[in-house]
Amino acid sequence: MNTENVTRREFLQKTSAGMGAAMVAAGTMGFPAISRAADSGKTVNFALAGLGGLSTNQIAPALQKTKHAKLAGIITGTPAKAEKWKAQYNIPDKNIYNYDNMSALADNPDIDVVYVVTPNGLHKEHTLKAAKAGKHVLSEKPMANSSKDCEAMIKACDKAGVKLAVGYRCQFEPHSLECIRMSREKEFGDIKIIEAGFGFRIGDPNQWRLKATLAGGGALMDVGVYALQACRFLTGEEPVQVSAIETKTDFKKFAEVDESITWQMTFPSGVIAYCSTSYNVNGINRYTAYADKGWYGLDPAYSYGGIKGETSKGPISFDQIDQFAAEMDDFAQCILQDRQSKVSGEEGLRDLLVVEGIYKSIKSGKTIKLS
Amino acid sequence: MNTENVTRREFLQKTSAGMGAAMVAAGTMGFPAISRAADSGKTVNFALAGLGGLSTNQIAPALQKTKHAKLAGIITGTPAKAEKWKAQYNIPDKNIYNYDNMSALADNPDIDVVYVVTPNGLHKEHTLKAAKAGKHVLSEKPMANSSKDCEAMIKACDKAGVKLAVGYRCQFEPHSLECIRMSREKEFGDIKIIEAGFGFRIGDPNQWRLKATLAGGGALMDVGVYALQACRFLTGEEPVQVSAIETKTDFKKFAEVDESITWQMTFPSGVIAYCSTSYNVNGINRYTAYADKGWYGLDPAYSYGGIKGETSKGPISFDQIDQFAAEMDDFAQCILQDRQSKVSGEEGLRDLLVVEGIYKSIKSGKTIKLS
Repeated sequence: MNTENVTRREFLQKTSAGMGAAMVAAGTMGFPAISRAADSGKTVNFALAGLGGLSTNQIAPALQKTKHAKLAGIITGTPAKAEKWKAQYNIPDKNIYNYDNMSALADNPDIDVVYVVTPNGLHKEHTLKAAKAGKHVLSEKPMANSSKDCEAMIKACDKAGVKLAVGYRCQFEPHSLECIRMSREKEFGDIKIIEAGFGFRIGDPNQWRLKATLAGGGALMDVGVYALQACRFLTGEEPVQVSAIETKTDFKKFAEVDESITWQMTFPSGVIAYCSTSYNVNGINRYTAYADKGWYGLDPAYSYGGIKGETSKGPISFDQIDQFAAEMDDFAQCILQDRQSKVSGEEGLRDLLVVEGIYKSIKSGKTIKLS
Repeated sequence: MNTENVTRREFLQKTSAGMGAAMVAAGTMGFPAISRAADSGKTVNFALAGLGGLSTNQIAPALQKTKHAKLAGIITGTPAKAEKWKAQYNIPDKNIYNYDNMSALADNPDIDVVYVVTPNGLHKEHTLKAAKAGKHVLSEKPMANSSKDCEAMIKACDKAGVKLAVGYRCQFEPHSLECIRMSREKEFGDIKIIEAGFGFRIGDPNQWRLKATLAGGGALMDVGVYALQACRFLTGEEPVQVSAIETKTDFKKFAEVDESITWQMTFPSGVIAYCSTSYNVNGINRYTAYADKGWYGLDPAYSYGGIKGETSKGPISFDQIDQFAAEMDDFAQCILQDRQSKVSGEEGLRDLLVVEGIYKSIKSGKTIKLS
C-alpha cells in the first residue's frame, strides 16, 4: 500500500493493478435470468449527474461494458465538462442538462435513469428533481446526509412511480457474493464475530469530501459505510445496538469531518461486529467473519478491483469484474423486469440509520439502541 | 484451526506444531547483559503453586530450558500430584508444600520465587502468603480478579521487600519485541489504528475458567487481556477512554462469565484501537498496527509457538522461543540484578483497570473515561 496521500481514485484503483484483462461483464454472476425485454436487446438509457472523478474514471468506462445500460446523457454544472463528454461519448445536445434545467428531463424519452454521482449532500435534491421528471434514480453511496433525506428520496420516487437504488457495487462483486452465499448457507456454521474496516489517507485537503455540508461526515460516510454494509450483508440482519468512539490527530484537515472512527454492534442472532474507518491511514480494507466451523473474508475487500478472498479452508477465487457495470446492469434489469433492486433506497436508509447511531454514540458517549 | 471445542492447552499449542527444534532459550534476545551473579552460574529457585495444565505442560518443561531459573519446589492441594511431580522432577520432600502450610516457606532458603499458577481468583491469596514468607512472586495473568486485589498484592510485596511480576510471556516473544521496537522507533511512523483480537472455543464446560469466583470473568480475563496488552505495549501508552459491548449465545456454558466482548479505546497520542475476545469462536489470534507509512502485526500473535509476523514491507521472522522460559529467566535476572521487571505488578494492575473499565462500560452502556 502506498503510504503517501492519495486521491480517492488512486487509492481505490491501487489494488486493481495487475488484474489484467480478467474484467468480465455482469450477467455471468448468477443473476436472475435476463427478461424477455433484455433478451430482445432492450437497453436502459442512463444520464450521469455529476462528472467528477468517479463518473470520469469508473462509471463512464463501465457504461462501455454494460449489456443493458447505456450512457445516453449527462447533467453537469460545468459547460467545459459537457463539451468534453459530448465529444468523447457522442452525446447529443438534447441529452445534456445542468442542475437548473433538470425538470426538462420529463420531456425526454431518451433518458430512463439518472445516476446521481454528485456530492453526498446533493443526492436528495438531484434525486427529487429526477423523480419529479419521471426518471428512475440510482444514487451513489452514501445515499444522503441523513436518514430523513433518505426517506424523502424514497417517498419522492414512490410518488413518481420510479425505481430507486443505491450504488452498493460490493453487493455485485463475486467474492462478496460468495461470502454472502457462505453466510446464508451456513457453510461454516453460525457467524459469531465479524471484523470489518476500511480506511485510506485522503489527499487534496480542499475536496468536497472534507466539507461537512457536502459530505455529511468524513471517513464513516465515505468508506466506513462499506464496512457497515459488509456486516449487514454477511449477517443479513440489522444491528440492535451500536457504540462508537472517534479520534482526531489532524485538526486542520479534518476540521469539519471525522478522521477515524471505530464502532461495534450486536445483531439479533448474537453476532458481534467491530469495525473501523479512517481518512488518515492506509492498509485497512477488509472484512472477516468468524463462524462456528471456520472463518472467511476478503482483503482487499472494497477496492474497484483486485479483490482477494480467503477462508479457513482455502482461497476464494473468482474473476475480477467491473463492479459498476454489474451494478448498473442489475438496475437496468430491475427496470426492464419491473422488480425492486436488492440495493434499494430502503437499503441505503438502513445504513444511514446506523451511521446516525454511530455519530449519536460518539456525541453522547453512550451505547445506542437501534430499532 | 480446529473447529471442535478444545482444551485451552490444545488450542494454544495448536499453532506450535511444526516449529521443530527452533526453540531457543532466553538470553539470546537482546536482554540486558547478564549480571555477574548470573554469569557466575547463580540460579534462582522457583516453586510452582498450582499444578494444573499450564504448569504441567508449559511451565515445568520450560524450567528444564531456563538458564537462570530452576524448578526447586511445588505447592499443591493434591497429594497425588505432589507424588507424581516429586518423582518426575526429583523434588525433595522439604520443598513440597500445600496451600495451608505455605507460611513455612519462610524457613526454606532453597526457594526464592513462588510462581502462582492457581486460578485467577486465588492469585491474591497465594501472592500474599508467598510475600509474607519472604519469597519473590511471579503471578500468572490476569494478575487478579480486580484492581483492588492487584493493589493489595503490590502493597504486600513492597512491604515484604520482594519482587512481583506478571506472566506476560508475549513481552518476551521476539516477534512481539520486534513490533514493539518498530513502534518505539517509529519505523512506520506514528500508529493511527490498532486492531487486536484473541478468542478460542473453550472446551470442558466444568473447568474453573467458566466459574465467576475463580476466573473473575470469561474470555476477556483469560485471553482478551492479551489483545489489551498488545495495544498497550504497541503504543507504550495507557488508554484514556474505553467503550465495550458483549454478546452471549450459549447461556448455559457462559452462565457465569462473558462469552464474547468487543471494545475500543483511544490513547493520548490519538491512536484508536478496536479489539475482540471470545470463548466461543476459533481463529482470532492477531494484532495489527496501522501507521503513517505502513502496517505491521502478528497472526497468530499469542500462541505458545508458531508466531508469524507480517508488515507492509515483508515478513517479520525470528526463531520461535519458549516464552515461559524467557519470562522466568528474565524474572530470575531481575532478582539477581535487583531490578524491577518490565512486567511488574503495576503492569498487571494497569490491565485490570482497563478490564474493569470494559466491564463497567458494558454494564452502564457508556464510554468510560480512564484516568
